[in-house]
Amino acid sequence: MAEKRKVIIVGGVAGGASAAARLRRQDEQAEITMYERGEFVSFANCGLPYYVGEVIATQDKLLLANPKLFKDRFNIAVKTRHEVVAVDRAAKTVRVRDLSSGQEFSDAYTHLILSPGALAIRPPLPGIDLPGIFVVRSIPDSEAIRGWIGAHQAGRAVVIGGGFIGLEMAENLQHRGLDVTIVEMLNQVMPPVDPEMAQYVAQHLTDHGIKLALGDGVAGMQTNSAGGLLVTTQGGKAYPADLVILAIGVRPDTALAKAAGLELGQRGGIKVNAHMQTSDPAVYAVGDAVEVFDTILKQWTLLALAGPANRQGRVAADHICGRAASFRGVQGTAICGVFDLAIASTGASEKALQRAQVTDYQVIYLHPNHHVGYYPGAEPIRLKLIFRPSDGRILGAQAVGKADVARKIDVIAMAMQKDGTVYDLEEAELCYAPQYGGAKDAINMAGMIAANHQRHEHPLAAWSELKAPGVLLDVREPSEFTQGHIAGAVLIPLGQLRQRTGELPHDQVIRVYCAAGQRGYYAARMLNQLGFQTQNLSGGYGTYLQLAAAGKL
Amino acid sequence: MAEKRKVIIVGGVAGGASAAARLRRQDEQAEITMYERGEFVSFANCGLPYYVGEVIATQDKLLLANPKLFKDRFNIAVKTRHEVVAVDRAAKTVRVRDLSSGQEFSDAYTHLILSPGALAIRPPLPGIDLPGIFVVRSIPDSEAIRGWIGAHQAGRAVVIGGGFIGLEMAENLQHRGLDVTIVEMLNQVMPPVDPEMAQYVAQHLTDHGIKLALGDGVAGMQTNSAGGLLVTTQGGKAYPADLVILAIGVRPDTALAKAAGLELGQRGGIKVNAHMQTSDPAVYAVGDAVEVFDTILKQWTLLALAGPANRQGRVAADHICGRAASFRGVQGTAICGVFDLAIASTGASEKALQRAQVTDYQVIYLHPNHHVGYYPGAEPIRLKLIFRPSDGRILGAQAVGKADVARKIDVIAMAMQKDGTVYDLEEAELCYAPQYGGAKDAINMAGMIAANHQRHEHPLAAWSELKAPGVLLDVREPSEFTQGHIAGAVLIPLGQLRQRTGELPHDQVIRVYCAAGQRGYYAARMLNQLGFQTQNLSGGYGTYLQLAAAGKL
Repeated sequence: MAEKRKVIIVGGVAGGASAAARLRRQDEQAEITMYERGEFVSFANCGLPYYVGEVIATQDKLLLANPKLFKDRFNIAVKTRHEVVAVDRAAKTVRVRDLSSGQEFSDAYTHLILSPGALAIRPPLPGIDLPGIFVVRSIPDSEAIRGWIGAHQAGRAVVIGGGFIGLEMAENLQHRGLDVTIVEMLNQVMPPVDPEMAQYVAQHLTDHGIKLALGDGVAGMQTNSAGGLLVTTQGGKAYPADLVILAIGVRPDTALAKAAGLELGQRGGIKVNAHMQTSDPAVYAVGDAVEVFDTILKQWTLLALAGPANRQGRVAADHICGRAASFRGVQGTAICGVFDLAIASTGASEKALQRAQVTDYQVIYLHPNHHVGYYPGAEPIRLKLIFRPSDGRILGAQAVGKADVARKIDVIAMAMQKDGTVYDLEEAELCYAPQYGGAKDAINMAGMIAANHQRHEHPLAAWSELKAPGVLLDVREPSEFTQGHIAGAVLIPLGQLRQRTGELPHDQVIRVYCAAGQRGYYAARMLNQLGFQTQNLSGGYGTYLQLAAAGKL
Repeated sequence: MAEKRKVIIVGGVAGGASAAARLRRQDEQAEITMYERGEFVSFANCGLPYYVGEVIATQDKLLLANPKLFKDRFNIAVKTRHEVVAVDRAAKTVRVRDLSSGQEFSDAYTHLILSPGALAIRPPLPGIDLPGIFVVRSIPDSEAIRGWIGAHQAGRAVVIGGGFIGLEMAENLQHRGLDVTIVEMLNQVMPPVDPEMAQYVAQHLTDHGIKLALGDGVAGMQTNSAGGLLVTTQGGKAYPADLVILAIGVRPDTALAKAAGLELGQRGGIKVNAHMQTSDPAVYAVGDAVEVFDTILKQWTLLALAGPANRQGRVAADHICGRAASFRGVQGTAICGVFDLAIASTGASEKALQRAQVTDYQVIYLHPNHHVGYYPGAEPIRLKLIFRPSDGRILGAQAVGKADVARKIDVIAMAMQKDGTVYDLEEAELCYAPQYGGAKDAINMAGMIAANHQRHEHPLAAWSELKAPGVLLDVREPSEFTQGHIAGAVLIPLGQLRQRTGELPHDQVIRVYCAAGQRGYYAARMLNQLGFQTQNLSGGYGTYLQLAAAGKL
């Protein structure tokens, strides 16, 4: 009989809690102890902005489990307000501090799982520790914000950072009646996606009364004469606020691992193998603190998301119990909702590909309805698909819209997980009834556009070459052209094109566009068969407006 | 230079229209003529029930294209009210009848595409041709129904057939104020799915005031004394009606193909190869009239759906133009909505597997919320997953619910298209934010349950063996047990189980259940590690109720 397992888990949220429950299912005899420095285990940190916004009404809703349930159901000892302050790897013990009594004690393990999570980034700015400045990482953080809003009758908030948490906090603070300004150093909100896609969200935020200050870094915070706060920026702006939310991002909490001499990766997270083992095989690490392998870009990265954390916890537990479990890495699927608009992505963004110096990629844009247009209530989905021309493999996708955004990205995420190509999307057989899609689903359309390009049946123009020599041809109707068009464009509506090819030159590139890309494709097919050099501008005028607004043209 | 293509297309909806447009994109020089015996081409037949229901207000919404658009945009000649009455394959000509003038003429082709569609089944019952009895296949059919409702102030409708069209018509007729009874020969609605899943829909229909008469075949129709109709059944019932909808199903319209000597398949559809060629390589056939290869059951079948029809049209067009295009077959993904409840499926049903005498399959049930329970508005999804124990390959899935049903089935459909296994579902990385899913998505949960079974970590009991010797153990709370439980069950709540194992026998099978399956799984894991022979009843008491109501226990 093998040695009885005595597993200590450091950190009781997401990865740690999943590991604990899975361990028990794999080994009824193991002694399992979970230490959590905070007051709560297994809480829904993704729900915190909505708890601040009172969309989630009561704190108990956020508590997915508690120490009693862990004890009764899983025979797992949970110690909250207990911080593991040191690991003696040679002795296989941890030093634990009871934060209530201040007393310390040692505890021995056969296997240790570190799930310390990530810390909110707090840049060393003047005034960063002033009262009224909050991060949103824990239930006490949220309670403090709720309390502050009530106690100070807060009317104005500045949210620093335009990522997931920043946007969710902006919506929820406005829901509480505050006037909200988002200050973001980058020129876009939602840094994980490309700027022209983020532009839809920026417009939506503005339409809903959120003020955006993009491309400006915060210089510091100070108390203003009225007793409130003043957020000053590097660009010389000053934003008064009764409440400031720091949502700049997170960094892996590696202090304990580092002090224990465990190897860290180049991105600053704990280094682990596919079994979630650190450089010490008796010590596992999971969740936001570890580096994960990006299956698309083939490089190690940080990704603070609950889904991967939970699966990593399972892998660690299974491996401890002797199963050859492996974590397959991440592709970075994520979604964020703001004012009923969803933005989601999976795989690599164009920015990330460029940073990784990948050049073997092609981008397409399309604007399908979420269901057939003839059924009432169709909502457009803005879709960007990135694929590899050398083999058609899908590299990434981004979508924005009010309906079925998660559905489209989930399908593409599954295709990518299975090394799918644009040809797979073209042939996908998906749910269709008038209220639930289209006979040609948005996924099929994306695949068809991309696969047509692959087969040289649909040459795509690069938007970046919009001002290169050649003819710019608009094939929409005159009424559409009059309402707005790209400067320098020549108008020949698609229905007249066969009769008017004499107006076009054979010795120049013709870049064609329509409203969303479809008529442009028809025109390009026709003209190329007639001997012209034609390329279609993917996504048409709709995409042009977003690219222009995002400063990419 | 090759011979100029002269392509004739018979039938101008879905497959035919897709083929025509694709042909033009592949060959600007081809002469393309589309003959349609009806008044309209490229109309949205999936929208017809909603047009009857006035959800879609005007007829023009249903017209996705018209002859003028085909001419202007694609240089395609469209002749409506022209029926192709014969094909001379030796001469490569068709005989066309102008239904307006009655005159006939010949037209020559290099390639012929048959897209005749399917015909509504009209069984030779007494009274089947009485006024007031309608099928729903065309715009004129819908207009006739709308007209009849108005002219006769129809108050009662009988819908014969409980499949997709039957259910959609029932909802839409009720929306028009009619009292609706569905008469269905089978013991369930929605024949493509398994009865216990259809049971959710039946209950929902009843809750919304639709009357269901299941398991009873129609004997005939007659005019009753009040001038209305009377539908009589084989079971001796009689249902008065002012309007009767025949929605029994469709059969391939193969008359023209048969007369032309083209080979038909065993299921009665036109036989085609992967390029959509019939037994005559110059004649292609697409859409509802052809037999398609079922990629899961590996057999030829009939599937009257718009998505495959459109893709078949593209394949035929591409192949005619010299490209090695192939249709990959079908997996039967479909969805139907009734009163905001969706039911969707992909792949094989359990019934279909049994009919095909497949025994290497395992079923699981689960009832996840469509998003995390702590965020307001979570709706349950009833999910049935069927997989192959020998290799973990997914064979089929069915889902019912008010939200994200299409999303779940689409993801599984994509996984299946890529030969996915339950391990792929377990590891899927999908969109998660509180309002859009869960850190463990329903897809992950389905994969975990199934993969745990595969790894012998989660032995599943067969519901069919519920009454076999052994102990039936309910691990829910007493309050749940009191509200309803399976006869003969012993109650030991999960939280007390570790302390009360002495009450359980080691020499009998213990079948455990909870509300939805999760606590049962925990209990089974614990007991098996303690030396008991325990199996979990997948889906728990929730699934039990549906199986019982569907008569499967």
